[in-house]
Amino acid sequence: MKLATRDDGTRDGALLIVRRDGAVAVDATDIARTMQDALDRWDEVEPALQARFEALQSGSIPGEPLDIATLHAPLPRAYEWVDGSAFISHIVLVRKARGAEPPETLRTEPLVYQGGSSDLLAPTQDIPLVDEAWGLDFEAEIVCILGDTPQGTTADKAAPYVKLVTLCNDITLRNLIPPELKKGFGFFVSKPASAFGPFAVTPDELGSAWQDGRVHLPMNVWWNDEQVGKAEAGEEMHFSFHDLVQHITKTRAFGAGTLLGSGTIANEDETNGFSCIAERRMRDILATGAPQTRFMQAGDTVRIEVRDAEGVNVFGTIAQTVVSA
Amino acid sequence: MKLATRDDGTRDGALLIVRRDGAVAVDATDIARTMQDALDRWDEVEPALQARFEALQSGSIPGEPLDIATLHAPLPRAYEWVDGSAFISHIVLVRKARGAEPPETLRTEPLVYQGGSSDLLAPTQDIPLVDEAWGLDFEAEIVCILGDTPQGTTADKAAPYVKLVTLCNDITLRNLIPPELKKGFGFFVSKPASAFGPFAVTPDELGSAWQDGRVHLPMNVWWNDEQVGKAEAGEEMHFSFHDLVQHITKTRAFGAGTLLGSGTIANEDETNGFSCIAERRMRDILATGAPQTRFMQAGDTVRIEVRDAEGVNVFGTIAQTVVSA
Repeated sequence: MKLATRDDGTRDGALLIVRRDGAVAVDATDIARTMQDALDRWDEVEPALQARFEALQSGSIPGEPLDIATLHAPLPRAYEWVDGSAFISHIVLVRKARGAEPPETLRTEPLVYQGGSSDLLAPTQDIPLVDEAWGLDFEAEIVCILGDTPQGTTADKAAPYVKLVTLCNDITLRNLIPPELKKGFGFFVSKPASAFGPFAVTPDELGSAWQDGRVHLPMNVWWNDEQVGKAEAGEEMHFSFHDLVQHITKTRAFGAGTLLGSGTIANEDETNGFSCIAERRMRDILATGAPQTRFMQAGDTVRIEVRDAEGVNVFGTIAQTVVSA
Repeated sequence: MKLATRDDGTRDGALLIVRRDGAVAVDATDIARTMQDALDRWDEVEPALQARFEALQSGSIPGEPLDIATLHAPLPRAYEWVDGSAFISHIVLVRKARGAEPPETLRTEPLVYQGGSSDLLAPTQDIPLVDEAWGLDFEAEIVCILGDTPQGTTADKAAPYVKLVTLCNDITLRNLIPPELKKGFGFFVSKPASAFGPFAVTPDELGSAWQDGRVHLPMNVWWNDEQVGKAEAGEEMHFSFHDLVQHITKTRAFGAGTLLGSGTIANEDETNGFSCIAERRMRDILATGAPQTRFMQAGDTVRIEVRDAEGVNVFGTIAQTVVSA
């Protein structure tokens, strides 16, 4: 089934069930008020949500036309936003771009960072740009939303904890990363609010494209209406979402509604384009000795979506515009 | 006023108002169901909470005897846990202990890391120890709880956003830090769930001890019933909470209920003891060439509390026991 959060002016929005084609939705607040409420009581509410989704899908409930601009992030605020970096070619390229070596444990231990999560952006919300010199970049990612996940969950036991899957634009201020990492405490100020959604879907909505904790579909990215990326989101994901669950639960448990990201989708094959500008700039440097591609500026747009083999826009489209703040 | 969260079996607990001496409390769920609910609607509910606190304090409401063991963390889960490291002597000592240099921006730019916050420990909850080789350490800290705080809040405008102040035991797995930091993405697996509480108090409860965004009172720490620390929490806090607010809001906004930590309270004067074992071990090394002090083991206890000039136990006592997990 497909869920979303309607921005009704409250902090956490109102839970919606969305038809597979994304065109029509029905209120679900009588089953669970919010997406977080549904995740908090997943086993209890999932059958009723599923039944209403099937009724919407079959037409026995008509639903209302859905305008993506009325949606918030699936979780407008979350108790945990943990972002991996599971694509080896992205790590290698981006580290080259900032003159850093890939970590020794590149292929044996996942990289994850803890992101901020009290104020997440809606899928069509403007991206505020305070200072162009900060190097504003997009990063197109797949994100799993976990249920309550105990400490010490191994990869082979992780699948049932993935309740929902969605999209993310993990907005990054590239030029703030080197000084921030130099301090040794992580990315902090170089990671402003990320955007999510529009839809969060149960893994079965992905059909055979959901395999071994990976989404085997291309990640489509448009920058100012030019398609710049179509990287496969599954094949080169070195650590699966299940591997990431094993890694993050080594020393603690995670509560329902934890957002767990793949990191930027990236392929070795350059003809698949890029899911973040930093990669393009690194390829510029390798080809010409200097970056030829600028970062985002006020007025720029970015669109991100994943379509399945039948052409269904699985998670809906993240479509954002950069505005001077 | 003094607030707490009763563990009533729900995820977010029930809001309590606590008498200044910590002995008696009264339910406040008719005003705000939970601490998060109160923070979400602070301006609306604060007068009613304050009025009931005053009635409890004056004896016109009798209240019920309060058992600290029935309390959860003030926020059993939070949308944001941002921990600073505002005590220069702690940074210098701990970096020496792991053979690392202090950052160049030590005195000009605060260090903060993003912590996990979906599953926080109660003030008397056991600390699970999976592997003694991980080097389990406590860290006694002051934590401010923010209201909605806009991007770009400068230090001179930060005071009104500090709604509550509490205690934290920022539990750390010391021996997991070096490999984790080497990967460049922050502390992730070296920071298990932190413990908070018991009480969250409005800054006015601190009287003249709350000055310029610092708590000018000693942080008392007992390890296995021996008092090992009594470091002043204010004087050597190089960056105030207001400075930390300015730093963290550089690139994004923070939602109500954001936990913002001071970092381990540490003084240059060795006779004030230590608020984390890592510091003691560093002083061992400087004195004898090797650490003489072990990390925590199963059965160990830690107690943390702050008393004001009148002897009031302002935040109540964090009292935890390490148990094999």
